Amino acid sequence: MKFDKVTVLGVGLIGASFALAIRKEGLCRHIAGTGRSEQNLAKARDLGIIDSYNLDPSASCIDSELIFLSTPVGTFEDLIKKCSTSFRKGAIVTDAGSVKGSLVYKIEGLLPSHVRYIGGHPIAGSDRSGIDSSNAGLFRDALCIITPTEKSDAEALQVVTDMWKSLGSKVLQMEPETHDRVYGAVSHLPHVIAFMLMNTVHDIDPSYLEFSGQGFKDLTRIASSSPELWRDICLLNKENLVPMLSLFQKHLELFRKYLNDSDSLSIEREFAEARKLRDGIGQN
Amino acid sequence: MKFDKVTVLGVGLIGASFALAIRKEGLCRHIAGTGRSEQNLAKARDLGIIDSYNLDPSASCIDSELIFLSTPVGTFEDLIKKCSTSFRKGAIVTDAGSVKGSLVYKIEGLLPSHVRYIGGHPIAGSDRSGIDSSNAGLFRDALCIITPTEKSDAEALQVVTDMWKSLGSKVLQMEPETHDRVYGAVSHLPHVIAFMLMNTVHDIDPSYLEFSGQGFKDLTRIASSSPELWRDICLLNKENLVPMLSLFQKHLELFRKYLNDSDSLSIEREFAEARKLRDGIGQN
Repeated sequence: MKFDKVTVLGVGLIGASFALAIRKEGLCRHIAGTGRSEQNLAKARDLGIIDSYNLDPSASCIDSELIFLSTPVGTFEDLIKKCSTSFRKGAIVTDAGSVKGSLVYKIEGLLPSHVRYIGGHPIAGSDRSGIDSSNAGLFRDALCIITPTEKSDAEALQVVTDMWKSLGSKVLQMEPETHDRVYGAVSHLPHVIAFMLMNTVHDIDPSYLEFSGQGFKDLTRIASSSPELWRDICLLNKENLVPMLSLFQKHLELFRKYLNDSDSLSIEREFAEARKLRDGIGQN
Repeated sequence: MKFDKVTVLGVGLIGASFALAIRKEGLCRHIAGTGRSEQNLAKARDLGIIDSYNLDPSASCIDSELIFLSTPVGTFEDLIKKCSTSFRKGAIVTDAGSVKGSLVYKIEGLLPSHVRYIGGHPIAGSDRSGIDSSNAGLFRDALCIITPTEKSDAEALQVVTDMWKSLGSKVLQMEPETHDRVYGAVSHLPHVIAFMLMNTVHDIDPSYLEFSGQGFKDLTRIASSSPELWRDICLLNKENLVPMLSLFQKHLELFRKYLNDSDSLSIEREFAEARKLRDGIGQN
C-alpha cells in the first residue's frame, strides 16, 4: 500500500475515476472526498468510490499523504489557500488541471514549505462529466503530462510518476509553459471551435441539426463538455489561446477569399496539406 | 431482380459500397463500373464488387436501367454530357453528390427527355476513401436525402426511394436548395473548419500533434477526407458556404473579444448554449 490516506478534491468524472483506479491498483487504504455537493459525495461514498467525505475541503485534507485536485482549474488557488494549514508535513499535492503555466508557480508559492507540489494533466477527459461516467480504466493507455519545476521535490516527482504508471498511463514531462502552448493548440482551441460551431449552426437554423451525420457529431462531441470547466481553462490560458484564435481566424479568412474567388488550386492545396498532417496522427 | 444492369460511375468508397449493397440485396443482375483508374476498376472486378468495367463512361452506360454517379461532384456535368447519348430510354440517373441546389437543375437540363434524373445524397461518407474501405452495410441505418424537383418522374422517384430503403437507409425528401443550406451548415462548414484547424496547428507547431487526445482526433477526423472531393463540394456550394463562414468568423471574433476582456460570464454563457444544443443531438 503506497498511501494510507488520499484526498480527492472534487469527485467528478476525473476525481471519481482516479479514486476507482488507485483503489483497483491497491495504492491506497482510505480515500477521502470533498466537493460542493453533499448529494454527489454521499452517492460516491455509497457506490464505494470514496470511503468518506467532508464538505470542508480543509478538514478532508488532514493526515492525507496525497491530495488530488480535480475541480475546475479556476478553483485551484482558492482551494489551496483554504487547505494549506491542514496539509500534513511531507504531503504531496498534485492535480488534473488542463492548464499549467503560471498556475503551477502560483500554487507552489501558496503552499507551505513542508508540502510538495507536482503538477499533472492526465489526457483522458470526456465530454461527459460526473461520477456516473467515471471508470477505473479511464487513465489506462492515456498520456499523463507531469510539469515539474526547479522547485519540485525529486522524491515527490518519482511518487507521482510511478502512481500514474501504475494506473496504466504513459507519463511525459513538460515545462509548464510548454504544456500550455501544446494544449492550447490541440485541446483548448479545438474546444472553442466546437462550441462556436454549435452556436453558428444555431444562428443558421438549429433544425438543420437533425440531418447531421457522423462527421458533425464527432467534430462537435467536445461541445458537450462542461461550460464551467472550459471557461476556467480558456481564461487561465488566454495568453496562448487569444493569438491561436487569431491565427485560426486568419486561415479561415484566407480560405473564404479563395472560395469567393473560386480559386480551386489553392483550396485543394489547403485541404491536401491538412489531410497530410491529419493522416500522420492516426485515426483513433 | 429490380434491375438487369446498373452502371456505377466512379468506383470509390461510395460507388463500391453501393455496388456491394445492391448485390447483397439482390437488386441487380449485372453491375458495370467505370472510372479513371483501370487498376482500381480491375481490382473492383477481381474482388467481385463489379461484374465488368469500361474506361469509357459512355460505353459503360449502354443498356443500363440505373446509372449511379459517385465521382466527385465537380465531374457530374462533364460526365452527363459524355454519356447522354448512350443512356437507354427510361434509364434512371441518380447520384451520391454532397451538393444539390443548382446542380440538380443543370443535370436535368443536360439529360435527354427519355432519361429520368433523381438527385440523391446518402449521408454515409467517411474520411476514408477508395474500395478498400467499402462495405455493403455503409448505408444501413443512415439517412439518404432525395431531392426531387417539379420535373421529376414519379415512378423513378419511387424506384430510387425504394432502392435506398432496401439498402436500410432512412429516406427523406428535401428541395435541392434546402439540401445545400442544411449540408452547408452541418457538413461543408465543419469540413472546412477541420481542415483549417489542422493548418493552424501546423503553423503553431506540428510537433504538438503527438500530444493530442481523443477530442482532437474526433474533431479533425474529417480533415482526412479527399481534398479533390471537398474542393468540388465547397466550390459548388460557395453561395451558402461563404456567408456561413462569415457567420462562424463573427462568433470566433466575439469569443476572442470576451476572452481578451476576461468576460467570464459571457464565455460560460456561450459554452452553455453550445452544450445545450449539442446535447440535443445525442452522442453518436
